[in-house]
Amino acid sequence: MAACNALYAQAGGVTAVINATAAAVIRAWRSRGTAVGALYAARGGLPGVLREDLIDTAFESEATLAALGHTPGGIFGSARFRLGEPDQDRATWERIAAVLRAHDIGILLYNGGNGSAVTALQLSELGKVCGHHLTSVHIPKTIDNDMEGTDASPGFGSAAKYLAVSMREAAADVASMASTSTQVFILEAMGRHTGWMVAAMGLAADDSPHTPLLLLFAERAFDAEDFLARVSSTVTRHGYCLVGVSEGLRTTEGEFLSALEAPGPGADTQLGGVAPQLAAMVRSRLGLKCHWATADYLQRSARHIASAVDLAQAEAVGAAAVAFAIAGDNGVMPGIVRESDSPYRWRIEAVALREVAGREKRLPEAFISPDGHHISAAAREYLLPLIQGEAPQPFGNGLPVHAAPVLVPVPRRLPAWNPSGNR
Amino acid sequence: MAACNALYAQAGGVTAVINATAAAVIRAWRSRGTAVGALYAARGGLPGVLREDLIDTAFESEATLAALGHTPGGIFGSARFRLGEPDQDRATWERIAAVLRAHDIGILLYNGGNGSAVTALQLSELGKVCGHHLTSVHIPKTIDNDMEGTDASPGFGSAAKYLAVSMREAAADVASMASTSTQVFILEAMGRHTGWMVAAMGLAADDSPHTPLLLLFAERAFDAEDFLARVSSTVTRHGYCLVGVSEGLRTTEGEFLSALEAPGPGADTQLGGVAPQLAAMVRSRLGLKCHWATADYLQRSARHIASAVDLAQAEAVGAAAVAFAIAGDNGVMPGIVRESDSPYRWRIEAVALREVAGREKRLPEAFISPDGHHISAAAREYLLPLIQGEAPQPFGNGLPVHAAPVLVPVPRRLPAWNPSGNR
Repeated sequence: MAACNALYAQAGGVTAVINATAAAVIRAWRSRGTAVGALYAARGGLPGVLREDLIDTAFESEATLAALGHTPGGIFGSARFRLGEPDQDRATWERIAAVLRAHDIGILLYNGGNGSAVTALQLSELGKVCGHHLTSVHIPKTIDNDMEGTDASPGFGSAAKYLAVSMREAAADVASMASTSTQVFILEAMGRHTGWMVAAMGLAADDSPHTPLLLLFAERAFDAEDFLARVSSTVTRHGYCLVGVSEGLRTTEGEFLSALEAPGPGADTQLGGVAPQLAAMVRSRLGLKCHWATADYLQRSARHIASAVDLAQAEAVGAAAVAFAIAGDNGVMPGIVRESDSPYRWRIEAVALREVAGREKRLPEAFISPDGHHISAAAREYLLPLIQGEAPQPFGNGLPVHAAPVLVPVPRRLPAWNPSGNR
Repeated sequence: MAACNALYAQAGGVTAVINATAAAVIRAWRSRGTAVGALYAARGGLPGVLREDLIDTAFESEATLAALGHTPGGIFGSARFRLGEPDQDRATWERIAAVLRAHDIGILLYNGGNGSAVTALQLSELGKVCGHHLTSVHIPKTIDNDMEGTDASPGFGSAAKYLAVSMREAAADVASMASTSTQVFILEAMGRHTGWMVAAMGLAADDSPHTPLLLLFAERAFDAEDFLARVSSTVTRHGYCLVGVSEGLRTTEGEFLSALEAPGPGADTQLGGVAPQLAAMVRSRLGLKCHWATADYLQRSARHIASAVDLAQAEAVGAAAVAFAIAGDNGVMPGIVRESDSPYRWRIEAVALREVAGREKRLPEAFISPDGHHISAAAREYLLPLIQGEAPQPFGNGLPVHAAPVLVPVPRRLPAWNPSGNR
């Protein structure tokens, strides 16, 4: 095990703070000095490993690491990647093993969401399958907050803060003009299957209990008549109505309202666009003036309004992953354990991937109010700590300053990979 | 003229900093002490005057004024309001005069955009028309930046900063995943007729000349084939393509791509939704994965990412308007005069409303690059100063703290207005 090299890779949808995790990983690794080998990063996630496209993080300056703390996106490149079982996807397994072996890589630090945790768990068996031992540690990350084994998924708190702040600001706008202009405003959040992001919008009404905000959760089948009746009565009572909706809203038949196209083989249906549909409904059926916004990637890249708690957790899981990996903990993930709500206290613990990988943490039923359109007090208790604190960042010429890494490639040692129709 | 009362009213679409103007007006008025009368605010804009629905600003605390500096929306309520000519809309003119007379109001401070400037100019004739002399001063405000007579319209700089920051952050996101995921990202900006907001998105590529960003200006007829060819070649060259588009994009036949419904009599067509149309085109014609966002009201209410320069100008026009009004300057507007680009120096001057009201400041042709899809160096020189500086604001419990004004009504002195079918 001694002095082997390590590989860090980003996976799946990026977040406003995944690069803060990357910086924490690099710093923690460097702090071990000569006791450890090199730390490489895969360019573009695991597909970069297959291409033997590795970056030597040793060339990144301290200034770059500091800047990664306030740079959205995934600085080394991220990818959605699914690894088949060894008997079905043998060539890919062998290629991964060959690349890792060629570069003496004994540690994988895989920074992703639910799907990636499955891959990290698979790769914890690389020694058994391909004879190249790998200590595989998953590092949690996803704005969807749907990972088990951690109080929150780093990235979620910042997206949640973005959505709650945006809804609160839009509320001030709409309230001021509703008497002669827009009466209904709809904000659409990402989150395919679970309503964590929509729940976060509920925080916009936190200290204004009379904010007329309706939430449409992915967890509740959409009932058009009920929705229109609620909007109508809310406008009658308050003069306006705000709506937070999940892109994953489904009809009672289970169809996505916003499915854009038939998914390709193995691909997820691309969602987005339920807000304009609802707006058209509000206009045509209720005759109310309605505006809508779809934040899409803005909600996962808005580092400028990141949550300080989320940022701290993103860094903590990165540092902990390095410690676990160096200790030889194979097939684990640093999970955030909540010790108390208020003040919010948390610690990091190693969680076995076999206990959590691929399991989807659903929004608890108890987090949705009995009427199905608001969040409960329990939801507030859970969510509020995650959006606490701002995380100011440097601006230059009026715009956020982002990292400019040098991304020095590791010289290739293998022939190019030509999977014959394999992938 | 001595010691008459004044009325402040908000008009048209609100901005992230119009309440900063309101606070500056109130402070400037208060600073005159007993030399002036009361300062009232119309609830919900000029329709509030017709309803005799006035607020006495004397009851708002210093803490509230400070909080108005970081509260989006229009705190007293805003309205789109068109006043007919006296011979067509006599009853409305007389009602306005009656309400102003009843409350000894001799000064109107009308805070709005292009359309509102026309109303302010009309009301500068109230003395002649109705025998109640009014010093009518318009205070510029609009995210659209389409007002003549001022270097920028307060509110624009903050919206511009929001859009440029959002595009830059989204660029980092898209760049990191384009090799296996989304290759095209489209962000839609408001701005009905002029491309100021789209031009602002061009700043996202300011210090990254290779950022693959295409802009679709309201000033250029949309050519689908040309657009698709540009997107395709940009993706081929850079791996991904960012697109900034105006909601006011039109076909070569002059039709809005995004017109949602036939306008009612006297109403503008409601726009919004060109981004999903373009995205569908990119998907179906180019087979590229495409995401899109429509920021809508978020771009005009995002006080949390306001421009410090914009905020300073919003305050300066408010204070200057009070000075002009007290000096008896009727039918004027404080205009911002640019003295230099770098460093950005500006001063306030009185501009005659008859010279500027109702005129639309178009994006200069020279601000669009020869290829029609980028901004020119001249545009950067103009735009960059307007997004300079951040304007931090207090947060409480993770969310922006907004003003909670008491909005104490002025006792009514007139019978209710019952315009018999007049409006």
